[in-house]
Amino acid sequence: MRRFVIVGHKAHTTPDFKLDDLAGGAGRLDVLLRCVNSSFFLSHDIRTDVIVYLVLQGPEDPPRTVRFVGSELRYLNPDERSTGALVRNALLKRSDSEVRSSPGVYVSKMSFKEVLDEVTPLGSVIYLREDGVFYRDRDYPDDVAFVLSDHKNLTEDEESELASRTKEIISIGARSYHADHCITVMNHELDLRTPPI
Amino acid sequence: MRRFVIVGHKAHTTPDFKLDDLAGGAGRLDVLLRCVNSSFFLSHDIRTDVIVYLVLQGPEDPPRTVRFVGSELRYLNPDERSTGALVRNALLKRSDSEVRSSPGVYVSKMSFKEVLDEVTPLGSVIYLREDGVFYRDRDYPDDVAFVLSDHKNLTEDEESELASRTKEIISIGARSYHADHCITVMNHELDLRTPPI
Repeated sequence: MRRFVIVGHKAHTTPDFKLDDLAGGAGRLDVLLRCVNSSFFLSHDIRTDVIVYLVLQGPEDPPRTVRFVGSELRYLNPDERSTGALVRNALLKRSDSEVRSSPGVYVSKMSFKEVLDEVTPLGSVIYLREDGVFYRDRDYPDDVAFVLSDHKNLTEDEESELASRTKEIISIGARSYHADHCITVMNHELDLRTPPI
Repeated sequence: MRRFVIVGHKAHTTPDFKLDDLAGGAGRLDVLLRCVNSSFFLSHDIRTDVIVYLVLQGPEDPPRTVRFVGSELRYLNPDERSTGALVRNALLKRSDSEVRSSPGVYVSKMSFKEVLDEVTPLGSVIYLREDGVFYRDRDYPDDVAFVLSDHKNLTEDEESELASRTKEIISIGARSYHADHCITVMNHELDLRTPPI
């Protein structure tokens, strides 16, 4: 299973935003929505071997985590607005434990630390950062979780949490890319190593 | 200069659509908007060495081409909605010759054939298709135009137009990807071959 954990430092945790204003009033939720697209979409197909964690840390009720499970997804479309609606619907659910808001979409009060606690026993955890090992120069296990940040870098505390669990840092090159573009490149690299049956 | 030519077979050519309905009422304009994003955006930067042609072929006034020039762009943001607004504003302009609708955004009545006529003398023209030469196994000139289709394949007539100008076909792998993901992968590959100064 490929897992992508993306931290949204300002992304709203209550459904108080308009779908017309995902880049503004939702705290750059648009960045995270594009990550969902690049994690799951093949042409006319959805990757069933991918799970995405959007860790939302903005107002009014942080943290909350929206988890997308590829093998269960039914109503995911590639455009930002419809995926924004799935996230907003998820945020309408109020529960301390994880609950399902639509097929393949789950919402919880998990923090970044708790998400790391969940994914670390399941496989390698890898941080994507500009100064890591070049991504083509290493192998990857089948079970792997990539950790990315939104348009802001991880905070020092978040980097410490991550460093306490993994020393694996990879880079996709000297340039700095949007998180969703990094996911596209990593998905593609893993595809090349696992040819279709 | 890197050029990306993307054909939108159903994308509307009159500004008769709502920004709330880019995937529906605008004829899958969302696909093309994501291509604009992946063509231009680096983290906190816009690529000034890229030009994008969106060739719109949907109702009510086909064909029309919206051209984005990276070195002149001022109001481009990564989200689909704001780029959709730039395209809709462009389509409000009525002129037989190419006119500027906002900094770096131009609109014309150019057809796919006419766009090919414009880009062919400027450098290599390369068609991205699943059955081409693997993209990592060749060199690229500085001046290159990549031709992609939206969620539909190029028509036979369009393939013939293209084939009369170039025999260069490349593939990014056995799987079939969304056009914007192909652009992200190609931009990244070219980045790796031209390290930052």
